[in-house]
Amino acid sequence: MGPVRLALLAVVALAAAGEAVYIPYNTSTVDQYYVGSNNSIQGACVQNVLDSLIPALLKDENRKFIYVEQAFFQRWWRNQNDMIKDTVKGLISSGRLELINGGMCMHDEATVHYIDMIDQTTLGHKFIKEEFGQIPRIGWQIDPFGHSAVQAYLLGAEVGFDAFYFFRIDYQDRDTRKETKELEVVWRGSKSFGSSADIFAGIFPKNYEPPPGDFYFEVDDDSPVVQDDPLLFDYNVEERVNDFVAAALAQANITRTNHIMFTMGTDFKYQYAESWFRNMDKLIHYVNKDGRINALYSTPSIYTDAKYAANEQWPLKTNDFFPYADNPNAYWTGYFTSRPALKRYVRMMSGYYLAARQLEFFKGKSKSGPTTDYLGDALALAQHHDAVTGTEKQHVANDYAKRLSIGYTRAQELVSTSLACLTELGSKSHCSSPTTKFSQCLLLNITYCPPSQTDFSKGKSLVVLVYNSLGWKREDVLRVPVFSDSIVVHDSEGREVESQLLPIASASLNIRDKHVKAYLGTSPGAKPKFWLAFPVSVPPLGFNTYFVSSMKKSASVSSKSTIYSSQGSENSNLQVGQGNLKLQYNAAGAFSLYSDSRTLIEANFEQKYKYYIGQDGNGSDPQASGAYIFRPNGTVPIKTDSQVPLTVLRGPIVDEVHQQINSWIYQITRVYKGKDYVETEFIVGPVPTDDGNGKEVAAEIVSNMATNKTFYTDSSGRDFIKRIRDYRSEWKIEVHQPIAGNYYPVNLGIYVEDGNKELSVLVDRSIGGSSIKDGQIELMLHRRLLHDDGRGVAEALNETVCLDNQCEGLIIEGKYYLKIDPQGEGSRWRRTFGQEIYSPLLLAFSEQDGGNWANSHIPKFSAMDPTYSLPDSVALLTLQELEDGSVLLRFAHLYEAGEHKDLSALASVDLKRVFPNKKIGKIIETSLSANQERAAMEKKRLKWKVQGPPADGKVVRGGPMDPSKLVIELGPMEIRTFIVNFERSISGKQLL
Amino acid sequence: MGPVRLALLAVVALAAAGEAVYIPYNTSTVDQYYVGSNNSIQGACVQNVLDSLIPALLKDENRKFIYVEQAFFQRWWRNQNDMIKDTVKGLISSGRLELINGGMCMHDEATVHYIDMIDQTTLGHKFIKEEFGQIPRIGWQIDPFGHSAVQAYLLGAEVGFDAFYFFRIDYQDRDTRKETKELEVVWRGSKSFGSSADIFAGIFPKNYEPPPGDFYFEVDDDSPVVQDDPLLFDYNVEERVNDFVAAALAQANITRTNHIMFTMGTDFKYQYAESWFRNMDKLIHYVNKDGRINALYSTPSIYTDAKYAANEQWPLKTNDFFPYADNPNAYWTGYFTSRPALKRYVRMMSGYYLAARQLEFFKGKSKSGPTTDYLGDALALAQHHDAVTGTEKQHVANDYAKRLSIGYTRAQELVSTSLACLTELGSKSHCSSPTTKFSQCLLLNITYCPPSQTDFSKGKSLVVLVYNSLGWKREDVLRVPVFSDSIVVHDSEGREVESQLLPIASASLNIRDKHVKAYLGTSPGAKPKFWLAFPVSVPPLGFNTYFVSSMKKSASVSSKSTIYSSQGSENSNLQVGQGNLKLQYNAAGAFSLYSDSRTLIEANFEQKYKYYIGQDGNGSDPQASGAYIFRPNGTVPIKTDSQVPLTVLRGPIVDEVHQQINSWIYQITRVYKGKDYVETEFIVGPVPTDDGNGKEVAAEIVSNMATNKTFYTDSSGRDFIKRIRDYRSEWKIEVHQPIAGNYYPVNLGIYVEDGNKELSVLVDRSIGGSSIKDGQIELMLHRRLLHDDGRGVAEALNETVCLDNQCEGLIIEGKYYLKIDPQGEGSRWRRTFGQEIYSPLLLAFSEQDGGNWANSHIPKFSAMDPTYSLPDSVALLTLQELEDGSVLLRFAHLYEAGEHKDLSALASVDLKRVFPNKKIGKIIETSLSANQERAAMEKKRLKWKVQGPPADGKVVRGGPMDPSKLVIELGPMEIRTFIVNFERSISGKQLL
Repeated sequence: MGPVRLALLAVVALAAAGEAVYIPYNTSTVDQYYVGSNNSIQGACVQNVLDSLIPALLKDENRKFIYVEQAFFQRWWRNQNDMIKDTVKGLISSGRLELINGGMCMHDEATVHYIDMIDQTTLGHKFIKEEFGQIPRIGWQIDPFGHSAVQAYLLGAEVGFDAFYFFRIDYQDRDTRKETKELEVVWRGSKSFGSSADIFAGIFPKNYEPPPGDFYFEVDDDSPVVQDDPLLFDYNVEERVNDFVAAALAQANITRTNHIMFTMGTDFKYQYAESWFRNMDKLIHYVNKDGRINALYSTPSIYTDAKYAANEQWPLKTNDFFPYADNPNAYWTGYFTSRPALKRYVRMMSGYYLAARQLEFFKGKSKSGPTTDYLGDALALAQHHDAVTGTEKQHVANDYAKRLSIGYTRAQELVSTSLACLTELGSKSHCSSPTTKFSQCLLLNITYCPPSQTDFSKGKSLVVLVYNSLGWKREDVLRVPVFSDSIVVHDSEGREVESQLLPIASASLNIRDKHVKAYLGTSPGAKPKFWLAFPVSVPPLGFNTYFVSSMKKSASVSSKSTIYSSQGSENSNLQVGQGNLKLQYNAAGAFSLYSDSRTLIEANFEQKYKYYIGQDGNGSDPQASGAYIFRPNGTVPIKTDSQVPLTVLRGPIVDEVHQQINSWIYQITRVYKGKDYVETEFIVGPVPTDDGNGKEVAAEIVSNMATNKTFYTDSSGRDFIKRIRDYRSEWKIEVHQPIAGNYYPVNLGIYVEDGNKELSVLVDRSIGGSSIKDGQIELMLHRRLLHDDGRGVAEALNETVCLDNQCEGLIIEGKYYLKIDPQGEGSRWRRTFGQEIYSPLLLAFSEQDGGNWANSHIPKFSAMDPTYSLPDSVALLTLQELEDGSVLLRFAHLYEAGEHKDLSALASVDLKRVFPNKKIGKIIETSLSANQERAAMEKKRLKWKVQGPPADGKVVRGGPMDPSKLVIELGPMEIRTFIVNFERSISGKQLL
Repeated sequence: MGPVRLALLAVVALAAAGEAVYIPYNTSTVDQYYVGSNNSIQGACVQNVLDSLIPALLKDENRKFIYVEQAFFQRWWRNQNDMIKDTVKGLISSGRLELINGGMCMHDEATVHYIDMIDQTTLGHKFIKEEFGQIPRIGWQIDPFGHSAVQAYLLGAEVGFDAFYFFRIDYQDRDTRKETKELEVVWRGSKSFGSSADIFAGIFPKNYEPPPGDFYFEVDDDSPVVQDDPLLFDYNVEERVNDFVAAALAQANITRTNHIMFTMGTDFKYQYAESWFRNMDKLIHYVNKDGRINALYSTPSIYTDAKYAANEQWPLKTNDFFPYADNPNAYWTGYFTSRPALKRYVRMMSGYYLAARQLEFFKGKSKSGPTTDYLGDALALAQHHDAVTGTEKQHVANDYAKRLSIGYTRAQELVSTSLACLTELGSKSHCSSPTTKFSQCLLLNITYCPPSQTDFSKGKSLVVLVYNSLGWKREDVLRVPVFSDSIVVHDSEGREVESQLLPIASASLNIRDKHVKAYLGTSPGAKPKFWLAFPVSVPPLGFNTYFVSSMKKSASVSSKSTIYSSQGSENSNLQVGQGNLKLQYNAAGAFSLYSDSRTLIEANFEQKYKYYIGQDGNGSDPQASGAYIFRPNGTVPIKTDSQVPLTVLRGPIVDEVHQQINSWIYQITRVYKGKDYVETEFIVGPVPTDDGNGKEVAAEIVSNMATNKTFYTDSSGRDFIKRIRDYRSEWKIEVHQPIAGNYYPVNLGIYVEDGNKELSVLVDRSIGGSSIKDGQIELMLHRRLLHDDGRGVAEALNETVCLDNQCEGLIIEGKYYLKIDPQGEGSRWRRTFGQEIYSPLLLAFSEQDGGNWANSHIPKFSAMDPTYSLPDSVALLTLQELEDGSVLLRFAHLYEAGEHKDLSALASVDLKRVFPNKKIGKIIETSLSANQERAAMEKKRLKWKVQGPPADGKVVRGGPMDPSKLVIELGPMEIRTFIVNFERSISGKQLL
């Protein structure tokens, strides 16, 4: 390196980045940004970028541009004529326009589940492959607010990317890296995969904008343009060249090798692309004439190749880049929880989309009828780093919800049709309009489910079809709201099933009324009286059917819950739990003792609530707590009103403890007879703000475990990463925000351990969590704030629900799950039950008049060989028919290497038994995003050299699949993706 | 019209107007606007407009665009390659890009002299003709702040325009015209030309922006874009069509014929043209589909033809549209005076440019050496309606001054060379580097003239060459600052000339020191002691030479002035004036009696000063007095300090009365022996603002004449228009601003009359003036204000001069001239002397050592036949050699029809005697802007029908020129323009 460095030749790559690269959709909706409406909020029109880009690129063949987000690109592409399409294809194939990252959007990395990441990336990559024959090589996550290990190894290395660029890392980390020239590293995000999933990671020195020195060339930017016309005044070539060279040399000074990159653009720029290229043309020309540096138009691919060619050994980075702070009092950990209802909606839709695609495959994808496509598009968009993150304006959040709702409506129609086809006897041929009508209940969580209002008195009964999208058999307890107290449940073989009626809490009924009116615009009708709970058993990748009907009053089989209302001191001996797990309450109504007779675990812990006062940003320090940033200004414990009685419901299936924690927090704790975990449902809100304070409400689970500052949180719902309070493993942190700075994103769960036992909490959506004290876990459930935090959204995170022009704070309903296991045993529940939370049973309701269902319907079904089940360690992530009739198939090993003594082993999936009635004609293993053959990808991908000793430990991955055996092996954490072509079956219906 | 009107078919012409059409250069300089720098002030880049326009026009052949200002266009054109030039030529020749108005800029109409208007328009039209073969048909003065009669008839009809569009007329006038559908009229601006110079004038209903209803489509505008993609949210075609049709119908409702025009654009728009066209395309498509109106892309030419084809009789408009108010307290009459120093600089350069081109012609235009071209360009730019108007930011005003300075420097070099060539004996052949060096003194007004520091003691003498650019012989008195009190002056024949030494007032010397240091950055050196005044006589279109040298002390010929300093009461009998005209002072030091022994006029009048307090715009009514708007908030008379003595200088040539009016106003009144008018020099400033008030300083001439509310001011320096206080001849005014609303622009002069006599005041620059009381005339001399008036400049008009970081208010030096004539006689002085003020004698200085000048130099010269002179009523406006060797020649009759009993007659110019030594090969009469043959223009120009009786009176115009006689006839106010080709002379030097 000696001579080159002495020559001070820094190659400046002008990657025309900017908003072309991505649009933060936080202030306008995606369609508004596309057409450029709603400009009073933000002047941005993606159409302009692309329209103006094409002539600009054509003007000079040296010019290059990179384009990132396919959601926008596709809106534009659809409206272009063939001439422009041909031109663009030419530009892309010659590399002058490079599509990188390539998902539908630039997804978030903290609040997004890895399955959603995969889906939205696959969707974008598919379009790029089909339309342009291109395979993106570069990850370009320049704006997300911190970066996950899963992004690096799974959505990076495993999709075949050679490098991954971004900028938002903790300011202290960045400062250190500048000094040590470690902004460019090799990131090893996976413990299980080791060096096999290494990726080159480039962190920008400052942000994703042009270098310091005023190089913004939008039509209304105030940087000095390069004025090189000697006939005009203000000729400034020399000054501009000096400024530019100075910026380049400064960056070269903190960069390894003599290649550096400038990102020439930023949010909303290139509205008129020529204005940038005109100036960059001149800068390149005059800077190269000057000779101190050599500047050229480049792309991240070209830059990456240059870095690789330098044959450098790079510093190693492991784990992730969370949490992110951009200054001492600005930890971007608020958005882990912001808009918890939207986050839950996204997660529900994600699981539903997975199931719906299976059913679409079973039925055969329709060219005309309803499909899952809109839901797929809507979900893809919702993964944007200003979408599910909750960091958008209210009207934008509404837009995402609306898209999901439209997508859900269509998918629901498809699901109902598919289930009808699958159940109807004799519908063997192509089935598009079966006679059985199913309906579904999206608002079951607020007890709203119109089909359950079936009038049993007339001899009708409610048919409940239960679909299981997992690859293993599943036992669960269903709940359906009912009006009658004389109910009986039968299974598909006509056997009575034990059931239990639980009076519905008024807290639940209140949100039912208000929300149905506010969001559906209709009155919800009569209030149901009970939750009917009954256990179900459903085969893998299949369904079972249950029948709910009325019995003569005297002969009711359904047990009514026994209700205890007891106050304060009377609770001392209160114990719930009909099975192995029992909870014994103390006087204050918080838990005191958890005991599991199977594992012999006994542990004390409390379950409490508190809120943080959101810093208002007034006064000398203007940083408020807001949509992005969590900045607490004091902690207020929420004392349960000891006058309010604790209500206990007991029954054969489940015990429930109802607690009105305060006037705006209601909690139900459930222990199911057959389950060895605790389910907690919380109803939080409206969070009061009449004291002028924004509040951030957290649930706490406090144990006396000695956890040594250590806790574990998942990375994008997949790998667990060890977190140590007030500490970062790869750099020295100075702690300014001891609470906000220890928050991490939780998508799957969080746990602590003390050497004897593990206390795990799993969540139903993305949420912020931490362990602020030893033995403690906390989850931020809800945030209602009154000030903007100054990061672009320009609106306070103050969600309300309005009815008849009366608005009050949004109420959040949700659940978390808790289990205490012997040390080393927790992972089984976290992984297996975690997958069940992600993929809940899908319920479809119908009605039968008399007992004739079985005459015309198949009541129970599994797509798989009835004797087969996927291994406990394997989930079917994707089963989706593509437009061309081929099928996308994706299996995931759920355990990390060494995570569980048995379940971390290599697992196998026998495809012949997964598809017992189908013949696989052709099967190709692909990259994770299914846009190239896996083998070709592995061959092509750059192998980066790392400083230090070689990685130790053997990486277990499944071997190549033998096409004659069709057995897929999966090593720990492995996800394998296949494109399958089934041979056309004579019978028409492919799978049945 | 019945059926068409019933059909409600309004044709909406979408003239893509906006800033392409013109850029108000008030906040950035012309070059900054071109390249788009200085965007922190205003996001505007003309380069973007044109760069983005071409692909936008190519995209759809229906799209059209009009382009107005050639100064910007030429900057762009120069940098285009041949391919783009060819494309643009194609667009222009097919009418998709139409160049209208076509001057270098959109000149102002109040503060601009008609000669400058002609020159700058000629410059632009020439380029358009040569480069594109086009002749603009439309006047497009959409932004100037009121409109002059000269613009309509001279720069409209006489350049061949068929129509003239604008919008800024008094709001009360507009309201009336809307009601009566008189926004479109035939404007007869010339009393002398009558209907022969009628032009169609279209006044926009509101402004030059899109119609009401949000139709702004710049990338950052917040109008709703037309969203017609049904796959995206917010589809809004119906709403947008309804809004657009509603706007069209509303406009149709106040418009005659079924054609209306929308101007789709405004200041600084079309930075990315596609964003407008994209939306206009859609509007046109869907609006026409809707069918209520028929919308199309159009141009003002197409629109004008459609109006003409309607064969309507239009209402008649005479006079002009001054003053302009946009609301009751906002009269745009401040800018008539704003930046008086810049206005004076422009006027000086204008006269100099006229003379310099003559000298350039005499010498032969050089391809390489210095030319007048830069000065021509700089002057053209300076006519912009935010340039000479004084309505720009200080840095922009500086830019105009800098351009003028560069232009002057080059022109001065050319002038010196040309004069040297003309004077040097034997330099008959092509003369490019003569040996005689001449220098000139631009700062003579502040007594700074380095050549006058010649050390006479060493036997050297100062050669003063005096060039007269007028077509008649001229007698005048020169003043040169000298250091010695023993000076003698000789004429070119060696005769001693009577001279007079006048001590230089310290007020003059103070501004000399400060300004030379501040603006030249050098010390001005020793202070001269005297003004040397001596009479000169110069032949038409020629020069004479005078020699200033030292005499033995005892024999000094130059008379020193006698000085009287007298106080208050002693002045009662003070009389000055050595010739016919005498002024007798009263006790207070203001004039009391004006008597002219030749005309027997006697009149009392006073000369006073006052200031208006500029309204600060605080409080409930936010309208401040500012660069544009004059809004006085009280009048403060300036009382002359009676303790300060009045100083009188007397001598054989001139008597001067010096008065220190107050600490910041100094006045010198001069009466020359051979002249029958009063010259008043004023030095005003720094205007104090330490009382927190902005001030607008006016001089008043108060007589006891009974003037019946009536006064006369010139229109752009040419026609005089009758003004009646608090009255408008064509509409009823409600008076809210009795002072500001009676101000008018004065370029040449202002006068009042009482049936017996006329009191005339002529000015040395553009200025605001009025007659606020009967018998009174006032001139606004200077304005220093502390608040912005909210019309775009965003800077207070607070001019300062800074030296060593100390800034104080700008001092203004200037002159006005006053004469009282018998009724009916005033015009001769106003016209003839007015022309002399515009074209002062040009002085060039050299040095001779001993008396040898005559041996090697021609001391006296006239280009014309020595026995010939132009008629008193005729001025030579242009004598200019063009690039191709042809010569542009322009003569103007200076009198209006009926203005003077003798001089308003038809006049003749005998070209053979004007060019006695040259043979005219070819001569073509052209339109005023020389871009087409006059005959063709007259044939082509649309003749509009006017309501009411036919115009009465015979119009006198010169007949066709007989090429054998070469005599040009000029009727009153006629200006005739010719392109002349002289036959190549054998002798090389063309003219001598």
